[in-house]
Amino acid sequence: MTPGSQHNDDTSTQRLRSDAERNRGRIIAAARKVFARDGLNASMASVARETGVGIATMFRHFPTKEELVAAVFADRMDAYADAVATALADPDPWNGFAGYIETACAMQAADYGFADVLTTTFPSAEAMEGRRNEALEGMLQLSARAKAAGRLREDFDSTDIALLLMANAGVVNVTGGAAPDAWRRFVALFIQSLEAPARGPLPAPPDHDALHQAMLRTSPDGTTEPDTTG
Amino acid sequence: MTPGSQHNDDTSTQRLRSDAERNRGRIIAAARKVFARDGLNASMASVARETGVGIATMFRHFPTKEELVAAVFADRMDAYADAVATALADPDPWNGFAGYIETACAMQAADYGFADVLTTTFPSAEAMEGRRNEALEGMLQLSARAKAAGRLREDFDSTDIALLLMANAGVVNVTGGAAPDAWRRFVALFIQSLEAPARGPLPAPPDHDALHQAMLRTSPDGTTEPDTTG
Repeated sequence: MTPGSQHNDDTSTQRLRSDAERNRGRIIAAARKVFARDGLNASMASVARETGVGIATMFRHFPTKEELVAAVFADRMDAYADAVATALADPDPWNGFAGYIETACAMQAADYGFADVLTTTFPSAEAMEGRRNEALEGMLQLSARAKAAGRLREDFDSTDIALLLMANAGVVNVTGGAAPDAWRRFVALFIQSLEAPARGPLPAPPDHDALHQAMLRTSPDGTTEPDTTG
Repeated sequence: MTPGSQHNDDTSTQRLRSDAERNRGRIIAAARKVFARDGLNASMASVARETGVGIATMFRHFPTKEELVAAVFADRMDAYADAVATALADPDPWNGFAGYIETACAMQAADYGFADVLTTTFPSAEAMEGRRNEALEGMLQLSARAKAAGRLREDFDSTDIALLLMANAGVVNVTGGAAPDAWRRFVALFIQSLEAPARGPLPAPPDHDALHQAMLRTSPDGTTEPDTTG
């Protein structure tokens, strides 16, 4: 190989790389829009259509929806984890706890795709799962503080928040368009149910492993059908 | 036309009719299974596959998913409306109210398709909507009784139940397979939040018309894409 052809190869490789990066960025931007509008069960094909690229280009950049989801929601998951630090800085343990729940639910209301991301585990997206675990650790500290202050019911379990996030995803998915603030009342009621003292006994929380298993879904509707639309 | 040919026509018409009825019954049975497993956003094509008929036969019997849904869930909507009468017969107004909520949420947990039906309005399915309205009327009586007895918070609104049903659909859709009893704890918490006296003020309930508008969706994911799979 001569230095000249080396140079030419570098230039065309660079051009290919920069084309690829541009396409990748366009796909992420389009996917953000489609997931926010339709939720995570939007098809890869509908993201390709929105981007204006072929389905083959789509899959070359993101062989699985999990990889696309991780790329699209990395910044939101960062904000979610950062919100715990803010909540832990609140001198009032109950305000910190309740405020964090409201923030998380507001993030779901603002983005239906993220509403589903918060209740779905993506084992191969290690960076995103790392932030999710940080958020969980922070939530455990928040709830321990609120219990110690006598403001949170003693039988509160961290899985109660997972259930709330699944529930709120259900609320915002139906009401988001026509009644966009409906989730606020639902979440306010739920938060009041967590205040100490408990009004009565509760069924046992779900097993943590079982709940983790439930969150291992690649799409919210559990679809395994091949994606052939579009 | 001779009497003989008349007779033959009758026979073949009868045979066609009975074939059609058998197919219709098979489609309904298959759809019940598919909707229970995958929720209402299961495609008409996947119901056709489950039935073992072509998509054309499918659409000849049920030109819209709304008609298929109404046929599949007529008996469950009957049971849902009948449960109000049972609850109103309970001498304890709070037990009647809370018991009805548990019954409705248990019906959602037992059938993901019905979970979505309870939070979706199908204007052309008049018989089904009639039963839904009966259930709503009964719920208004139940809540009035429970408020009069001082057991239900004064600011309870009937839309709180609609929000709960949307929320519980979100919970059972994620947890149903791996943690099938998780909804019980979630619903118990929510019911406790409704007990009088109120723990604090709440954001205003959503506008009834806006909530009705939100429930006017033909599929839970709002999909309007043509159904071309299968």
